[in-house]
Amino acid sequence: MTDLPKHVEIQEEGPREGFQIEPGPIATADKIRFIEALAGTGLPKVQCVSFVNPRRVPGMADAEEVANSIRREPGVQYTGLWLNLKGLERAQATPLDLKGRILMSASETFSIRNSNRNMAETVDEQKRWLAAYRQAGIAVEWGSVMTAFGCNFEGAVPPDRVVAVVATIMDLADEADVTLKGMSFADTVGWATPVAVERVVGAVRERWPDLEIALHLHDTRGAGLANAYAGLRLGVARFDSSCAGLGGCPFAGHKGAAGNICTEDLVFLCEEMGIETGVDLDALIDCAHLAEAIVGHPLPGKVMRGGGLSAIRARTAGG
Amino acid sequence: MTDLPKHVEIQEEGPREGFQIEPGPIATADKIRFIEALAGTGLPKVQCVSFVNPRRVPGMADAEEVANSIRREPGVQYTGLWLNLKGLERAQATPLDLKGRILMSASETFSIRNSNRNMAETVDEQKRWLAAYRQAGIAVEWGSVMTAFGCNFEGAVPPDRVVAVVATIMDLADEADVTLKGMSFADTVGWATPVAVERVVGAVRERWPDLEIALHLHDTRGAGLANAYAGLRLGVARFDSSCAGLGGCPFAGHKGAAGNICTEDLVFLCEEMGIETGVDLDALIDCAHLAEAIVGHPLPGKVMRGGGLSAIRARTAGG
Repeated sequence: MTDLPKHVEIQEEGPREGFQIEPGPIATADKIRFIEALAGTGLPKVQCVSFVNPRRVPGMADAEEVANSIRREPGVQYTGLWLNLKGLERAQATPLDLKGRILMSASETFSIRNSNRNMAETVDEQKRWLAAYRQAGIAVEWGSVMTAFGCNFEGAVPPDRVVAVVATIMDLADEADVTLKGMSFADTVGWATPVAVERVVGAVRERWPDLEIALHLHDTRGAGLANAYAGLRLGVARFDSSCAGLGGCPFAGHKGAAGNICTEDLVFLCEEMGIETGVDLDALIDCAHLAEAIVGHPLPGKVMRGGGLSAIRARTAGG
Repeated sequence: MTDLPKHVEIQEEGPREGFQIEPGPIATADKIRFIEALAGTGLPKVQCVSFVNPRRVPGMADAEEVANSIRREPGVQYTGLWLNLKGLERAQATPLDLKGRILMSASETFSIRNSNRNMAETVDEQKRWLAAYRQAGIAVEWGSVMTAFGCNFEGAVPPDRVVAVVATIMDLADEADVTLKGMSFADTVGWATPVAVERVVGAVRERWPDLEIALHLHDTRGAGLANAYAGLRLGVARFDSSCAGLGGCPFAGHKGAAGNICTEDLVFLCEEMGIETGVDLDALIDCAHLAEAIVGHPLPGKVMRGGGLSAIRARTAGG
């Protein structure tokens, strides 16, 4: 009936997406404690920090200190984000697990507004990044398409536009002698619906049947987990998400800046449908409460309040 | 590929589910204003009040005053809830649109804890209700199955248990010479997943292919809209929901009491997938802000913060 995957891999985005948007300040020790707690739940990947201009994003000024201080759990990838060569250099000076990616937007207007580059300029920029990664010995495994479902400047993005951008990314990878493992599609500003996810995944699969697909979904308009479920039904097995729904507090007036889908809500949904995540849900719920204590205001996660069902299952015959 | 319905009918539960759980007090005039605003959005049914013991639910002590004061919109059904004959008598003295239903729980333990009646006693009680409705000239159109997906006392509810309860309800209807229009399945305590929705709807459809199905979903663990989408894919075209997610504030420590799925988030999801709801989303978002102003604390709805997309679509070529 469906192609639900047996196992889903989740990249936790909370420490980076969350702590860079919080009005803060968040203590460095709290960030480290939160990252270590997340890595202890069984999550395979935790994005820890972004190496961005500390004058523009003061909440990430301690990125090096955080990255250098984490007590590492074996088998967990600790990743970071950078937007320019200066940021990459800073990341390289830390023990983080650096991965390159080829990054484009499906909306040219968004690209211009976001990075001041049109499509052709973005292609040139990505070539420079590929050269930099090669020189630094950093593996490039994934392509990423931002605004893959819609954009507040150009409206809904048709799937053939997404396919064209994926083709450009695949060409860039070929030219650079890089074999991409997969392609990630981001609902950057909350336009996705389950039907749109089906169309985009379907169109990409038709042309590149063996390409792994990842989804980076935001919950701007409440459809985040419905969109994730649409992906799961098509066998999508990689998702980015944020513990407690960190990364855009809907109660702080960040209009349209709602965070990623909530990690523990996603883990609950998967595990209850028989899809393994490798994550200890109760430990993750503890992390969500820790996140709320750290930021000092309510976060939008639901399972952290409703609770998991494993204890009830364990004591009921109906389990 | 899917059986998405062309049109969905939504019963708004916010005024009743929301205002009875709020610590309050909520002014009677605010309740009336909110109900009138909701009825002005195109919602076909608004559940306004419950006629319950004012000593146990002080927030509903003004049920008659609210019901008597609403300025009625033509074509809108204004409904109410009662739990005993005294409540029904009170409802009959108001101009509300009264509908009877046959109500059972799929979990006997829940039934005993909730109403102090086992299955056999519930059947007898429903017979008394059917007689009371007949005597009062109140139409009985729907059956309702509570805890249709799981229960905190008995654990997960298997679909064949739900089918057995539906069969009991159908027998009760037959005996009373009532032809039911459809059957509503409630995820009373937040156990549903999309896969569980598919299993329950599938099992019921197999036995009663022509029975209309409605879903009353709570968003206790964040999967509410994913569960609604699973229903939509199967052609389910009736949902209960609450404006702004009223009806269990996740930020007030009502553990496990998360409200219904959020009406404007559901309307957004439907309309974006091409399913008509007849509801003006922008007017409904105004209602959600009104609800928040009335209760005086943040409510969990997302679209009320992220905003709809119609204005962007109207001004973009990509729309």
